[in-house]
Amino acid sequence: MDATVTRAQSTHTGVTFPEGMPLECGVTLAPVTIAFRTYGRLNADRSNAILVCHALTGDQYAAEPHPLTGKEGWWDIVVGPGRPVDTDRFFVLSSNVLGGCMGSTGPRSPRYDGSPEPWGTEFPPVTIRDMVAAQKLLIDHLGITRLFAVMGGSMGGMQVLQWAAQYPDAVFAALPIASAAYHSAQNIAFHEVGRQAIFADPDWHNGRYWEVGRIPARGLAVARMCAHITYLSEEALTRKFGRRLQNAPKDSTEAISLFGEMFEVESYLRHQGSTFVQRFDANSYLTITRACDYFDLAAEYEGDLANAFRGTRTRFLLASFSSDWLYPTAESRSIARALNRAGANVSFVEFPTDKGHDAFLLDEPDFHRTLAGFLRGCAVHAGLAPAGSPA
Amino acid sequence: MDATVTRAQSTHTGVTFPEGMPLECGVTLAPVTIAFRTYGRLNADRSNAILVCHALTGDQYAAEPHPLTGKEGWWDIVVGPGRPVDTDRFFVLSSNVLGGCMGSTGPRSPRYDGSPEPWGTEFPPVTIRDMVAAQKLLIDHLGITRLFAVMGGSMGGMQVLQWAAQYPDAVFAALPIASAAYHSAQNIAFHEVGRQAIFADPDWHNGRYWEVGRIPARGLAVARMCAHITYLSEEALTRKFGRRLQNAPKDSTEAISLFGEMFEVESYLRHQGSTFVQRFDANSYLTITRACDYFDLAAEYEGDLANAFRGTRTRFLLASFSSDWLYPTAESRSIARALNRAGANVSFVEFPTDKGHDAFLLDEPDFHRTLAGFLRGCAVHAGLAPAGSPA
Repeated sequence: MDATVTRAQSTHTGVTFPEGMPLECGVTLAPVTIAFRTYGRLNADRSNAILVCHALTGDQYAAEPHPLTGKEGWWDIVVGPGRPVDTDRFFVLSSNVLGGCMGSTGPRSPRYDGSPEPWGTEFPPVTIRDMVAAQKLLIDHLGITRLFAVMGGSMGGMQVLQWAAQYPDAVFAALPIASAAYHSAQNIAFHEVGRQAIFADPDWHNGRYWEVGRIPARGLAVARMCAHITYLSEEALTRKFGRRLQNAPKDSTEAISLFGEMFEVESYLRHQGSTFVQRFDANSYLTITRACDYFDLAAEYEGDLANAFRGTRTRFLLASFSSDWLYPTAESRSIARALNRAGANVSFVEFPTDKGHDAFLLDEPDFHRTLAGFLRGCAVHAGLAPAGSPA
Repeated sequence: MDATVTRAQSTHTGVTFPEGMPLECGVTLAPVTIAFRTYGRLNADRSNAILVCHALTGDQYAAEPHPLTGKEGWWDIVVGPGRPVDTDRFFVLSSNVLGGCMGSTGPRSPRYDGSPEPWGTEFPPVTIRDMVAAQKLLIDHLGITRLFAVMGGSMGGMQVLQWAAQYPDAVFAALPIASAAYHSAQNIAFHEVGRQAIFADPDWHNGRYWEVGRIPARGLAVARMCAHITYLSEEALTRKFGRRLQNAPKDSTEAISLFGEMFEVESYLRHQGSTFVQRFDANSYLTITRACDYFDLAAEYEGDLANAFRGTRTRFLLASFSSDWLYPTAESRSIARALNRAGANVSFVEFPTDKGHDAFLLDEPDFHRTLAGFLRGCAVHAGLAPAGSPA
């Protein structure tokens, strides 16, 4: 397949596949662009590549400042020279998911080459499987036949599981973190609240908000606020904010403060909501939450998750966090059981923390030591040259 | 104080206090109307009254069909002849909270007698203490000097605690159910999401939605959907809906279904949201969520909850439900500890259930047997005539 490296949507580096790809829904999407970033150097036999998969609202800027917000990369603490995913040793590849809004083909992309009209709500539905198939196009294009590791948290972990099930020979090690093999009814419900909040925004404009030069910022902010609560634990919220009050903004038209005060946690959530809308597209949010909701790996394998992994030689590290109530430990444990039933090589660690689901992005030294140790062990088994060897 | 029995807002039975009442915020609200319903008969010495306090979106229609929805009363399963709160024996009083929208004075009430203009967002902030003070006006008016019991779940339980702290001699027995002595950071955060969803609705109209003849139905529905998730447990959602799909409505303008299907849990939530807006006022929702958020009983007593109950002779029954994550058992346990430190007479039961916070409204035979037994025991201690005795 012909592919050309482009500056996707003029600002992000990516590769475009003119022939596109067939989606699970039956539509063939063409062209398809995958925006990506790399950290470290690919070695001579192309055996040291680690694919990092991002979560719902993440993107390819894992280990460098974000071009829109200027904030440090979302996995800066994990990926870099001397970090648990050591870029002095590994070649790290991080791509924006299909359906995203940071340069990969998604609802913001033109319907066809040269069209001024974006897909918007008519962008075809994509699945986790489609996201992974798009990443496979990318690694094929880069001449990588086997990834040393695929890793990611949350929705990133779903992609890892899909990779291991779909392309077992292309994945030496798989690290699904704070994730699940299917999206629970409660998680679907929270996503639905966010979607309804977007639809309720007058600037939603039936999904064609670009026509009126606006974005459904308030609805998208509410969606983000609601989701953000689920990323934290009750303990973390209490520790960070408790019931502390601060002065309510004087210019607020919303007379909801009591005695002129508001809770710090409210102010924090509003800030989370308002900064999010600067970097994320509402139609992408709908597309990607939908993909998560539909994820149910066992359903593709006669209802038994073990069938997804029979005969696999991939080495698995499952990690969960004790206070994560969005993807609780029980979900990782049931993946571990399925892997064991399939006879796979699997390690499973639950890390005690009060930081909730977001712990996978935060300073968790035990977790980071475990990542580093697991990757080091796998490198020995894979026959990778030790760190510092000439590439 | 003069008071006149009226048909509050033309449709609900209530009593109006022309002189009104001072609120915690410093404003004197006048007049004040409290809408209420009664079940059973008050005995000759007015000693058999039980005040039932409703939750956030409840109202006075505890044990009879709701006048707007036609649905059975929210505590029909608990209150009635031969039920755990036996109206053959007890006189049950159920009032709409101050700030509510079912006949008690609230944001929908006129600013002053004869005014065509409702308070709207300028309704003064009310607290749980204010709600209880308004209920005290009502029982004084009815000539009841001591309530045999005060009981309620969720925000109703907060009122129970406030009653016991503020008017200990007027409360023989107190039953705070599935509740807490303060609102947690996580609960404040969920309320804030709901409020922001209302503000994001174009029909919010800065709180003056009556001027345009509309209601912020979509925002209020999103608020309800988000709150509703917190009322259920993950287990209950999984048991009720799992990941079952149904056909998406064909006329939906929101192209979010994948392959023409949606999850049952989404359809259920949308239904919950859309029916709620028919019976609830957005400004009341803001007022009452705010009152909950500000509730922190210990803060009124030098930070030690035990101080709120020192020397009390009230008998307490605390009830919690194992899968309730909105007001988890730990919060009831800490109230029980404070009561024990204060030397109070306290029973505390956690009921195992997978129904979540809503369990207090549902068919929970163990819980109901405990309520009945506790009230029977208290009746003996209070010297109440046994059931069936002439009033």
